[in-house]
Amino acid sequence: MSIRIKNVLVEGKERNIYIAGNLIEEISEVGSGKEAEFVIDGKGKAAIPGLFNAHTHAAMTLLRGYADDVPLQEWLSTKIWPLEARMTEEDVYWGTKLACLEMIKSGTIFFNDMYWHWRGSTRAVAETGIRAALSAVFIDGFDEERAREQMRRNEGLYEESKKLPGRIIFALGPHAIYTVSEESLCWVRDFAEKHDLLVHIHLSETKGEVEECIERYGMRPVEYLDSIAFLSSRTIACHCVHLSSKELELLKQNDVKIVHNPVSNMKLAAGRMLYEELKKAGLYSNIALGTDGCASNNNLDMFEEMKIASLVHKSFSGDPTSMPATEAFELATRNAAKTFRLNSGVIEAGRLADVVLLDLKKVELVPNHNLTSNIVYSANGSCVDTVICDGRMLMAGRKVEGEEEIKEKASEVAYELVKQGV
Amino acid sequence: MSIRIKNVLVEGKERNIYIAGNLIEEISEVGSGKEAEFVIDGKGKAAIPGLFNAHTHAAMTLLRGYADDVPLQEWLSTKIWPLEARMTEEDVYWGTKLACLEMIKSGTIFFNDMYWHWRGSTRAVAETGIRAALSAVFIDGFDEERAREQMRRNEGLYEESKKLPGRIIFALGPHAIYTVSEESLCWVRDFAEKHDLLVHIHLSETKGEVEECIERYGMRPVEYLDSIAFLSSRTIACHCVHLSSKELELLKQNDVKIVHNPVSNMKLAAGRMLYEELKKAGLYSNIALGTDGCASNNNLDMFEEMKIASLVHKSFSGDPTSMPATEAFELATRNAAKTFRLNSGVIEAGRLADVVLLDLKKVELVPNHNLTSNIVYSANGSCVDTVICDGRMLMAGRKVEGEEEIKEKASEVAYELVKQGV
Repeated sequence: MSIRIKNVLVEGKERNIYIAGNLIEEISEVGSGKEAEFVIDGKGKAAIPGLFNAHTHAAMTLLRGYADDVPLQEWLSTKIWPLEARMTEEDVYWGTKLACLEMIKSGTIFFNDMYWHWRGSTRAVAETGIRAALSAVFIDGFDEERAREQMRRNEGLYEESKKLPGRIIFALGPHAIYTVSEESLCWVRDFAEKHDLLVHIHLSETKGEVEECIERYGMRPVEYLDSIAFLSSRTIACHCVHLSSKELELLKQNDVKIVHNPVSNMKLAAGRMLYEELKKAGLYSNIALGTDGCASNNNLDMFEEMKIASLVHKSFSGDPTSMPATEAFELATRNAAKTFRLNSGVIEAGRLADVVLLDLKKVELVPNHNLTSNIVYSANGSCVDTVICDGRMLMAGRKVEGEEEIKEKASEVAYELVKQGV
Repeated sequence: MSIRIKNVLVEGKERNIYIAGNLIEEISEVGSGKEAEFVIDGKGKAAIPGLFNAHTHAAMTLLRGYADDVPLQEWLSTKIWPLEARMTEEDVYWGTKLACLEMIKSGTIFFNDMYWHWRGSTRAVAETGIRAALSAVFIDGFDEERAREQMRRNEGLYEESKKLPGRIIFALGPHAIYTVSEESLCWVRDFAEKHDLLVHIHLSETKGEVEECIERYGMRPVEYLDSIAFLSSRTIACHCVHLSSKELELLKQNDVKIVHNPVSNMKLAAGRMLYEELKKAGLYSNIALGTDGCASNNNLDMFEEMKIASLVHKSFSGDPTSMPATEAFELATRNAAKTFRLNSGVIEAGRLADVVLLDLKKVELVPNHNLTSNIVYSANGSCVDTVICDGRMLMAGRKVEGEEEIKEKASEVAYELVKQGV
């Protein structure tokens, strides 16, 4: 299919965008450019790259608002884990569909997921048309048998993933160093290297994790992973809140990708990622932005995430010029596209057709002195009018196919889960 | 006029709400209650009290995104002040109309304003139907003649204000202790006492303000105001970021009202209000929440403000149970209503008819395990469907009368202001 977006603002200038298949083929002057099967009137709209949510647990959207304002360990052990243990593949399917719907409605075209019942997430992503890197939670609890089970499972899922659409990336998901044994981490390292797979891991999220690591291995988390040659340019390390300067250096040496989750870190009081320090270590273009799961956010709105990221670093550093709007926007687009090795994140000819149209008539975008400022500091997901992902229209005029059914079914399974009690 | 809202959720139960004139007259069981001239189907909606924005500079919405990511003093002196100096009453009128539109669209039914060209703001508020406390910026720059001018001006405006609708409150707006002389502050104190007026002031927003105060008066800002008997239960002190324990005590003794502006404080790197400490000092019910002006936020969405307020205190205190959703919501409703001496902020019979209906089908509100959690941590202004203020429908099905004209005219005057250069 081909799509023509007429008279749309691209970096401040009115242009025509021509999309053929899943690529932006041409951006041309108004009045010129190819005709297409499908035409969108872009008047009063701005085209921006679709946003990337670089770390989440999509199906946790089922638990939105279920257990807030409780201490972290109590939250996990008495609220979240018992419910997760009871989730079925069907629950995960509907939870992920709800998350995909929310992300599409707020201009996100890609998410990096780690969750249970991988097939449920995969089916939801295949149907909704969004891009994703999907990893199954790999936890062995330092148990050899569970470890072997997880390895076999991942080998199987990797084979299955070969039949999936190209917009779905299979990734490995070793949960964290405190839930996965060294043997398994080494297996993940080797399997990822052999098949050139991304590796999605929680790293240095809490002080407790660091302390436990020092006690267990006699070194800090990043040092430990480096000592077993785990780190590479394929490693996607989420949170990275508690880092020593030596660890910053190791992340840089290994070209590790970093995902910042400011809302989750604030809500769970985990601490603050050292943004300025990561930049100084030369890691700026390795940093992407994620919402984390809805149980610790509680939404998937990347506009909100960009704003809060920028605010938190200004506030903590005492420097109101820290993380300017342009950087927050790059974290959610260009940088993330690089992390996930996708030719996306920028609106230009030759790139993947992941295009979001903002409705410039939304009151939050008026006046329009500076679109990037408005996007980061004023907009929210409701400013998105149209979403094209991989050349396919996922939302037009804020309408997404099947929306009502998704909300109904996801609510049903969510209430059923909670009704059973913990 | 009378309005009946049928089958709407009120604190988790389906109810009928009957509004007569500007009051909620009755909340009754489904299937019962009075008939009305106007009927709203509340099915799939929840009724919550309209939100209060307790500190803003509405017309600054014209400058949204105009000058971000620059150091504070440079921002004020080279960007904001030169433009403000050129603003006309007509500019302020359109800027305030734009702000009112944005606030109505995001469920805010009241704002506390301090700005130039009071008549422009007043006209906008009178027309749009929202509630407001409006004060003219009172700055004398420690100049006797300017001081007398400001006093005469406020005497005149106070007289004028008597002809305004009851939903507009005249307040005094001494800008801050570093811009207003002691003589003027004493005049404000006496005039406010004589006429029982609210006094809107910026207080202890930045470290620089505290240092300057100590240098000038030999004491900290709150101590200084207490020493001239300025503080009272009518004082609305905005920001209150830098407070000693003695100052906390003085605020409590004088029953001073406090407005927290977390986004602005973070964006300008001003510091963090001591929420837990204010609570410990017994001031919880005196705290309200505000967005500040759009030049330092950059929107007027109180849903976002509630979330960020809660996040910032969890994050800084290291306690994920700090400022739970219920408190953030009360700051924006019940507490603020008390601050502004309005019988609003709660949905119950006998209260002012300031009612907001949320659309529970918005994806951010699905599933609905806990509505208050969803409101504070997941929703944004676009979840608001209907706004009733003072018994009058200001928005129905997200449509506000005159919206297109307001956005066009406000954009025009905003671009004209900026075009002239600084």
